[in-house]
Amino acid sequence: MITSRDVARLAGVSQPTVSRALRGDQRVSEATRERVQRAADALNYVPSETGRSLSTRMTKRIGVVVTDLTNPFYPHLIGPLHDELERHGYRMMLFTERSETAVASQRLLDRSIDGVVLATATVGSRLPDDLQRRELPFVFLNREAGGQPADAAVVDNELGGRLVARELARLGHRTIAHIGGPADTTTGRGREMGFRLGLSEAGIGLPETAVRRGPFDFDTGYRALTEILDDPRPPSAVFCGNDVIAVGAFNAAKARGVRIPEDLTLIGFDDIPMAAWEAFDLTTVHYDLAELAQEAARLVVQRIESRETEPRRTLFTPELVLRGTHAAR
Amino acid sequence: MITSRDVARLAGVSQPTVSRALRGDQRVSEATRERVQRAADALNYVPSETGRSLSTRMTKRIGVVVTDLTNPFYPHLIGPLHDELERHGYRMMLFTERSETAVASQRLLDRSIDGVVLATATVGSRLPDDLQRRELPFVFLNREAGGQPADAAVVDNELGGRLVARELARLGHRTIAHIGGPADTTTGRGREMGFRLGLSEAGIGLPETAVRRGPFDFDTGYRALTEILDDPRPPSAVFCGNDVIAVGAFNAAKARGVRIPEDLTLIGFDDIPMAAWEAFDLTTVHYDLAELAQEAARLVVQRIESRETEPRRTLFTPELVLRGTHAAR
Repeated sequence: MITSRDVARLAGVSQPTVSRALRGDQRVSEATRERVQRAADALNYVPSETGRSLSTRMTKRIGVVVTDLTNPFYPHLIGPLHDELERHGYRMMLFTERSETAVASQRLLDRSIDGVVLATATVGSRLPDDLQRRELPFVFLNREAGGQPADAAVVDNELGGRLVARELARLGHRTIAHIGGPADTTTGRGREMGFRLGLSEAGIGLPETAVRRGPFDFDTGYRALTEILDDPRPPSAVFCGNDVIAVGAFNAAKARGVRIPEDLTLIGFDDIPMAAWEAFDLTTVHYDLAELAQEAARLVVQRIESRETEPRRTLFTPELVLRGTHAAR
Repeated sequence: MITSRDVARLAGVSQPTVSRALRGDQRVSEATRERVQRAADALNYVPSETGRSLSTRMTKRIGVVVTDLTNPFYPHLIGPLHDELERHGYRMMLFTERSETAVASQRLLDRSIDGVVLATATVGSRLPDDLQRRELPFVFLNREAGGQPADAAVVDNELGGRLVARELARLGHRTIAHIGGPADTTTGRGREMGFRLGLSEAGIGLPETAVRRGPFDFDTGYRALTEILDDPRPPSAVFCGNDVIAVGAFNAAKARGVRIPEDLTLIGFDDIPMAAWEAFDLTTVHYDLAELAQEAARLVVQRIESRETEPRRTLFTPELVLRGTHAAR
C-alpha cells in the first residue's frame, strides 16, 4: 500500500505538505503542488477521502443542485461553475435529483460537502432554511427562494421583461401574449412582472387569459403556442419566459405553417447558444451566462472561507438582442 | 445532536436496522425503510457519510463520468441512469471533468464510490486500466475503450452506419460525404466503418477527401458543412456521426441558402429529442436512449453485488427513422 509518506519522500517535502497539496490548500505554492501531484501520479497514490475528512473537517467539495439537467440552459452553467470552483481548489459535486425535497432528505446535508450552489431554487423552498439551520454555506444561482436575504448571483429579470415590453410597444404590437415559467420561480415571476409593468406604461394591458405558465421547457412552449393559435383572435406577438420555451413555441408555429416573424413575433430570454442558431435566429434577452455561474462560484467560496455575515447579491444587467423573430405590426 | 439511536427509538426498530434502511440495504423491507425515513425526516436526522463508509466499506455511490455535458446527448442519459441506480439503492455522483485524465488523477479512485459508469470513454484511454488495477467495478455506456473485454451497454454502431449507406444508395445518391465523430471513439469508428462497408457493397466509394472528423458537437457539423459547400462539386448527401453534428450542418446549410432535402440530404445518428423538432425533422438512426442508460446502471450494480467474472456486453439494435431531411437524387 502506497502512503502519503512514500509520496513525501519522492517529492522531497514533508508528509503534512503532501496532504495540504493534494487537497488544494492555498498555503502550498503552485510549484510544490505540481511536484507533489507528479510524485503521487508516479506512485499511483490517491488519498483516502475518508481519512482526509476526518482529519481536516473540510471536504473541499461544493454541492451544486440542478433539478432539471435536460433543460439545455443548465449544462451551460455547469462548465464555467466547475472551472471556477477548481480554480479555488474545490471540487464540484452535482446533485441532479428531480426535486429539492429529494436532495434535502438524502444527500446534501450529510457533511460530505463544505457549501452549496442552488441553481433551481423555487419560491418557498425549504432547502435554504435546512441549509441555514445546519450552518452549511450556500448561494443562489439564477433563481432565488424569496425568503431571508442570502448570497446570490442573479439577473435583473424585471428589467429584462421591461425591455421586451418596450420593444413590442415600439413595434406597434397591441394584442400580446406571454408564455411564462412557473409562478414559484423568481425568474418566472420577475420576467412577467417587468413585462406587465413595461406594457402597462405603454398603455397596453395583459389580461390573465393572455398568460400561460409552465415548466421552463420545450413542451410548455409547444403546447401553449398551439392553444394560442387556436384562438379566433390570436396575438401578434408572444414573449416567452426563456429561450427553451421560445424554441418550443417556434416549432409549434412551424408545425401550423405560421410564419415567424411575418405572422408572429416571438421573443425569448437567456440567449443560450441555441438561440443564435440559424434555424431559430431568436430575438432574446442577453446576459453573460458563464460570468453569472463564475460569480456564484466565487460567492460560495468567499462565504466558506471568510466569516463575513452580510449577504452579497450580484445583479447582472440584461440587454435585448435583436435577431430575426420580431417584426413591426 | 440527533443520533441513529433517536431515530431507532422513534421508528421502533433496532439501531442497525436504521443504518441499513438509510443506506438502502435490500434486506430491509420497503415498509420498514419508509418508517425509518419518516422518523429520520421528523427528527431532521442525516447519517454521516464518513461514519458510514468507515463502518460498512460500501459507499452506495456510483460515479458517472461525462466529459462533455454541454453536448445535449448526455443530459438525456443522466436522468434514466440516476433513476435506475436509485431503484437499486445507489446514489449517482456525476464527474464532469473536461478530460478522463483529470478524473483519474483527482477524484474517482479515492474510495468514495463503489463503481463507475464511463459514458465518454476514448480508445486507448488509461482510465479503465486504472480502475481495473484498483478493482473498482466499471461499465462502459455508449462508448468503449477498445481494450480488455468489459461490461458494456452499447449500440450496434456498425449496423446503424450500414443502414444509412443502404438508404442513400437506394435513393440514388452517388457523391456522398461523411462528417464523423473523433477517430478515437468506438462510436465514431463503428459508424464510419459500417457506413463505408454499406456503401462499398452498393458499389460506392468514400474517398478520404470526402470524410471530415471532429468532436461530436455543433461546431464540427457547422464548420465541416461550410467547407463541403465550398467544394466545386459538392455531394448530394451527407451522413453525420451524430444528431448534434447533423444539427450544426443543418444550420450551416440554412446560412448558405442550401435547401434540405431538395439540394442536400442530411442524416444523423442517435435520435435525440431535438431531431424530431419541426425545425429540423431530421432523418436519423434510432435506438432507445433511456433503455441504454438503464442497462448500464443494471450492469454496474450486478458487477458490484455479484462476484461473477464474465464480462457482459449488451448490444442495442438501431433502426432508421425516415423523417424530412432525405430525398431521392
